[in-house]
This record gives sequence, C-alpha cells and structure tokens, in this order.
Amino acid sequence: MTEKKTLPSLRGVVAGETALCTVGKEGAGLSYRGYDIRDLANHATFEEVAYLLLYGELPNRTQLQEYCARLACRRALPQALKEVLERLPRTAHPMDVMRTGCSVLGVLETERSFAQQHEVADRLLAALPGILTYWYRYSHDGVRVDPATADASIGGQLLHLLGGAQPNPLYEKAMHASLILYAEHEFNASTFTARVCASTQSDMHSCISGAIGSLRGPLHGGANEAAMAMLEQWSNPDEAERAILGMLERKEKVMGFGHAIYRSQDPRNAIIKAWSRKLAEEVGDSRLYPISERVEAVMWREKRLFANADFYHASAYHFMSIPTELFTPMFVLSRITGWCAHVMEQRQNPRIIRPSATYTGPGPRAWIPIGERP
Amino acid sequence: MTEKKTLPSLRGVVAGETALCTVGKEGAGLSYRGYDIRDLANHATFEEVAYLLLYGELPNRTQLQEYCARLACRRALPQALKEVLERLPRTAHPMDVMRTGCSVLGVLETERSFAQQHEVADRLLAALPGILTYWYRYSHDGVRVDPATADASIGGQLLHLLGGAQPNPLYEKAMHASLILYAEHEFNASTFTARVCASTQSDMHSCISGAIGSLRGPLHGGANEAAMAMLEQWSNPDEAERAILGMLERKEKVMGFGHAIYRSQDPRNAIIKAWSRKLAEEVGDSRLYPISERVEAVMWREKRLFANADFYHASAYHFMSIPTELFTPMFVLSRITGWCAHVMEQRQNPRIIRPSATYTGPGPRAWIPIGERP
Ligand SMILES: CC(C)(COP(=O)(O)OP(=O)(O)OC[C@H]1O[C@@H](n2cnc3c(N)ncnc32)[C@H](O)[C@@H]1OP(=O)(O)O)[C@@H](O)C(=O)NCCC(=O)NCCS
Ligand SMILES: CC(C)(COP(=O)(O)OP(=O)(O)OC[C@H]1O[C@@H](n2cnc3c(N)ncnc32)[C@H](O)[C@@H]1OP(=O)(O)O)[C@@H](O)C(=O)NCCC(=O)NCCS
Repeated sequence: MTEKKTLPSLRGVVAGETALCTVGKEGAGLSYRGYDIRDLANHATFEEVAYLLLYGELPNRTQLQEYCARLACRRALPQALKEVLERLPRTAHPMDVMRTGCSVLGVLETERSFAQQHEVADRLLAALPGILTYWYRYSHDGVRVDPATADASIGGQLLHLLGGAQPNPLYEKAMHASLILYAEHEFNASTFTARVCASTQSDMHSCISGAIGSLRGPLHGGANEAAMAMLEQWSNPDEAERAILGMLERKEKVMGFGHAIYRSQDPRNAIIKAWSRKLAEEVGDSRLYPISERVEAVMWREKRLFANADFYHASAYHFMSIPTELFTPMFVLSRITGWCAHVMEQRQNPRIIRPSATYTGPGPRAWIPIGERP
Repeated sequence: MTEKKTLPSLRGVVAGETALCTVGKEGAGLSYRGYDIRDLANHATFEEVAYLLLYGELPNRTQLQEYCARLACRRALPQALKEVLERLPRTAHPMDVMRTGCSVLGVLETERSFAQQHEVADRLLAALPGILTYWYRYSHDGVRVDPATADASIGGQLLHLLGGAQPNPLYEKAMHASLILYAEHEFNASTFTARVCASTQSDMHSCISGAIGSLRGPLHGGANEAAMAMLEQWSNPDEAERAILGMLERKEKVMGFGHAIYRSQDPRNAIIKAWSRKLAEEVGDSRLYPISERVEAVMWREKRLFANADFYHASAYHFMSIPTELFTPMFVLSRITGWCAHVMEQRQNPRIIRPSATYTGPGPRAWIPIGERP
C-alpha cells in the first residue's frame, strides 16, 4: 500500500493529469491548451475559447461559424424547466437557481451514454444564460423572456436578456474578455468537484451541478460578489483605506485577494482591471474604480497580497449594470466550458477518486444498551 | 512549496481528518465513532445511528424519542417542491430526481448560516424519503402521497409510502440494518465530493446535491442496481456461473464485488447477506438467493474478489418489493447522515481543498489569427 502522508487540503498534491491548462508556472502564468491567457483575452471571442477547451484546437472560420450556429440553436428551454424556474422565488440565491436549473435539465435531457458528452456540454453552455435570466426576469419583473434570441454571442445574449435591449457593443466586448478569463483554471475546487464526480462514471449534469455548488462558496466563486458588497460600502478611497487597514488588523479576509497557487500575481488581474477602467470611463464613474485601485494598493503595500481575477470583476460587472447577486452565476456561464472539458478528461481514467483520512475519533467502544446510557 | 507526487486517483493519500469512521483497519473492519458496525447493525435503530453520526454520541432513551419526534415533524414537503416533482417525468433517472429535490429544497429553505447546519441536516434526513416517494408515486401511479406520515421510523415511512400500506415488521427491521450499513464510509467518492464543496464554505444543500451526483455513478452507489440487473438475467445458479466466467474472461467488471480499501472482505456483507437470506425465506424465494450465493462463490474461487455492501442489497431490496431503479436512492436516504456529518467536520478546517495536476498538454503556442488557421 502507498505510504500515507498528511498534507493540508491537498495543496501541492497531484490528483490527476490535464492537458487543458497550466496555472502558476513560475508562480504567475496561465495558459489554455498552450495559448497564453493574454493572447486569448485580447484576440479571441469567448466561443472561440470554448471551442478550444472543448474540442482541443482553435476553430477555423468555418468551424467557428458552425459552432456559434449550433450553440444558438440550443438556447430554448424545455417547458417543464421554465415551469420549475417560475416556482423558484425572487429571494432565492441565484447560485441555487443555477444548480437547480442544471439538475432539472439533466432530468429532462439525461446523458444516456458518454458518446453524448459533447452534445450535452454544448447544450449546457447554450442553455445556462437562459436559465439564469428566465428565472431572474420572471421573479423580479414578472417577464417571461424568450431565451432563443438571435444574439451573436453568449455574452451578448446574457446582456440582452437581462437588460431587455440590444447591449452596448463595448459591454459585449468586455463580456468576451471576462468569460475567457473565467473559463478554465486547472484543479480549482469546483473543477475538482466535477472530476471526483466524473470518476464514479456519473453523468455530466451531476458533475456540473456539483461544480456549481462548490463555486457558490465564498472562498471560491463567491468572492467577486463579496468584493462588490465590500466596495459598495465606501464613498471615497481614503475611507476605503481606513476600512481595509481595520480588516487586516482584525485578520479578516479581504475578498478578491490572494490565491491558492499564484504567488506573485494573478495574470487575469491586469486584463480585467484594464476593462474595468475602460468601463468606468464609459459610464463616467469617479468613485468605484478609484476606490478599487486604492484597495489594491493598500493590500499590496501592507500584506503583499495581490488582486485575483475576482477583484476588478466586481467593478467591471457593476459598470455593465449586472446585478451584484448575479456575479457568481456569470462565472458559471464561463467555467461551464472548463468543467465539461475536465469531465471528459477524467472519464478517460477508469479509477474512482478515493483518498484516505486520518482518524481522530474515539478508539473501539463496546455497545451500550439504550437503557444504560447516561 | 510541498513536493509534488503523482498518485493514481489519490489512493492512500490523506486528504483530511475525520472522527466519524474507520474503514479497513487490518483490511477488514468498519466502525462509526468507535462502535463496530456489527454491534450497530444488530442492536441499533437507524435513527440511533443517525444521531450518533450527527451529534457524536449514542442518544439515551429521552434523546432518541425527542430526535425521532423532531424528524417526524419535518417530513412534510413545501408546495413548490411538490409542484416541481410533479414536473419530473416517470422516465427520469431517480437519482436525478433526488439531486433535483435536494437542490430545490436548498432554494426554498436555504441554509443562511452554519449555525443552522444541524437543523438543515435533520430536515434533509426527514424530507428525502418524501421527495423520492412523492415523485415516484405521482409519476408512476398518479397518486399524490402525503409524506407527513406517523410511521415510527424512516425505513417504515419509506416502505409505507412506496407500498401504500403499513409495512411488514420484518421488512422494517431489515430497513434499519440496511440504512445503518450504508450510513457512513469515510472518504468515499461521494463524501469526498461533499467535503470538497464544503471546503469552499458553500451551503449544505450544495454539498449534498454534489454528493448525490457522485453516488449516482455505476462505480459507486449505482452498483446495487447494476448487480440486480445482472442477477435478474439468470434463472438458476449454473447459468449464473457460466455467465460470470464469461464476464471474467472478457475482463468485464462484476458489479457488487471488489473495493477500493477493503482487501479481504467487506464487513457489511455478512450482515446484509443474513438479511437477504431471512427475506428470501419470508417471501419463499428459491431462485435469486441461491444465484447470488453461487455468484459470490465463483467470484471468490476465480478471482479472490469478495462481495461488497452492494451485492446482497440487490436481492434484499428486491425481496422487500423495492423497485430496482430505487436501489441507489435508498443509499442516499441513509448516507445523507454521513455526508452531513462530514460537511460539518470539513467546515472546521478553513482551507479550501485544491490539489494540483500534472500537465500533459501542448507547450506554449503563439496566437494564430483565425484567417490563418488550418
Ligand atoms: C484564495 C484563498 C482561498 C487561497 O487560500 P490559501 O491557499 O489557503 O491561502 P492561505 O490561506 O494559505 O494564505 C496565506 C496567508 O495569507 C492570508 N490571506 C490570504 N488571502 C487573504 C485575503 N484575501 N485577505 C486577507 N488575508 C489573506 C491568509 O490568512 C494566510 O495568513 P496566515 O499565514 O496568517 O494564516 C485565499 O486567499 C482567500 O480566501 N482569498 C479571499 C477569497 C477569494 O478572493 N477567493 C477567490 C480566489 S480566485
Ligand atoms: C469498487 C471498485 C471501484 C474499486 O476499484 P479500485 O480500488 O480501483 O480496484 P482495482 O480496479 O484496483 O481492482 C484491482 C483489480 O481487480 C479487478 N476488479 C476489481 N473489481 C472488480 C470487479 N467487480 N469485477 C471484476 N474485476 C474487478 C480490477 O479490474 C483490477 O484488475 P487489474 O489489476 O487486472 O486491472 C472496483 O472494485 C469496482 O469497480 N467494483 C464494481 C463496482 C462496485 O461494486 N462498486 C461498489 C463499491 S462499494
């Protein structure tokens, strides 16, 4: 038997192989299937990156057109799913809605064999924006949106359904970058959840529902939303600085900073930060962006903690009028690509993921009949 | 940084601590919080074991009575949940229904703080049999059952709602043993899924929905159902023997045999096997039980592979008239206790579970504009 070794929370332990992504080479870099994240975020559309992750190579023009058309055809939601979404109250946690919507889609369109996995992944990618916005608009505005729009991109469709009108082209461009940045990140907790589930040879919707549940946690995807809630409290950079110093003093975690793998910077930060600045200009913001910059500077000065992908996503999404409670679901709409690609990879390994535990409980105890217990 | 080490599927790697369970001490034993599984299965009720797992000690008589009363009060389902279940078709995979039911309960009764975790766990334990049977009876028989029964036990309630009448007392006793055997098993794949999810500080329903999805896999909880499907094909032991030899020759996996941790036997097998025999006598079976015994003997003779907890569960559940497609959901009704207890444990560790991966993909690649791609 392999020698047992205690390691806290598997940090640094290799749990499998992947051809999808490198995180933190030399403590800083990020690539998807060999392509640097900066190239992808600057030049590609999100659909191009989805294709890269799910099918292994960048598509040529014909392939990309066909892929976008295929996704667009898969936007409509089954009637039963819409009826379920109408029963989820306005006060629901949007990530609970996403998890439920994915689960119900799995009931109605069950993956019966792994031969269907690409079809299921494409369908999920196409359907999730509709699931989110159908519930959101119905529960908040009493409007039944039609997810089967003709928008050219997933980000455009999302903004269109949320805002009820054709989106600002700059916002749609920002959405491409944002969705690309969030698409894939190796064995992070939600992806690892999906892989553990996949290792039992379970179906795709089970793996993805599980991953959504993990992403919901405040230590993971919940951070962009938590960062926004924090930033909103302050009216100027000086006030923000005083508050941050207090949080650090009280050893509170500042959401949107730090990382389990990166040591010196998160390569996604510069990209989303540039978008946040551009969007701040577009909407004429003179409060949120300067506050964010100050918080970033103070965190670095005081603790050498750097902003991660989530921090400037807060302000960027806010400038695009995305409601704060939908920030983590936005992450889902993107990461669905990485999750599905990881599930497909994991399925090639026939062994179930099954670690061990150190036992810390009581030693052997004799049975005590109920009448004799204290 | 910790030295990286490749280990296949984390076998033998310690991923955390637990006070709940020892599996495979000397390759064979199983204990819950120090009590031997044989003592528990022979003497305890399932509710007693649920209390032990969730609250740390065996209850005294007053505590047990109060606990059973508390659970019984929590059986009714919210109207919106029932309306959702009515929209899940008869052809749905029952584990998809369980995953969805748990997820919807999380929407309607969201865990807003970890201070509610015991309340949420008790509610799930009490509500899941109703979720399963409400959907099953409605979709199959058009009957809207009332889950808020006065049955004394969870197993009794389940049999009652499924069969539409007070259950045979012997079956209710067998259910106690079965649910006790399935309640907890350290860091198996579904429990580990729940713990990874919990490590992000996500809510209980997310952790449990994820665990249900993992249990659904044929390499995990799906095995009892798969074993039944296999056994049903044969009409006598000789035919079964020939078929098994063929499967082994073709290197096919025989469901209900082998284990990731146990090496010489699964301690749960003798207990459920004895129940299967007793139930075979009760119903006058002279086919399924002898076939099962022969399969067990052949697997041991040929491959030194032993029956695991799932194998005789197939025949035992069948004798109690539980439909085969509900075998894996039965496992959920029991393991919900272990899962919730593990989530509570994991929450005491503030670090997110985040392993690493070995990269096997292409090296750095330069960006290629779309017009120049092959
Ligand atoms: C991402 C995160 C979970 C990584 O966790 P990790 O790998 O366990 O990192 P560690 O907890 O070991 O961090 C090392 C130290 O920095 C501190 N630290 C890390 N992130 C911090 C933050 N955001 N605010 C304040 N202190 C932080 C830790 O408390 C720890 O201090 P200690 O040594 O005194 O205990 C963690 O940085 C965090 O919780 N960040 C905030 C949530 C967030 O933004 N998540 C999104 C990630 S993309
Ligand atoms: C439980 C299980 C997943 C454990 O997997 P594991 O730890 O990876 O065990 P291994 O695959 O290393 O088993 C060792 C060898 O026995 C074989 N083996 C294991 N279980 C077998 C089975 N049920 N039928 C036939 N051969 C089996 C394996 O194929 C392997 O053979 P190899 O060395 O020629 O490749 C595996 O035994 C299995 O798939 N069993 C059937 C499903 C089942 O009953 N699951 C419920 C578990 S409670």
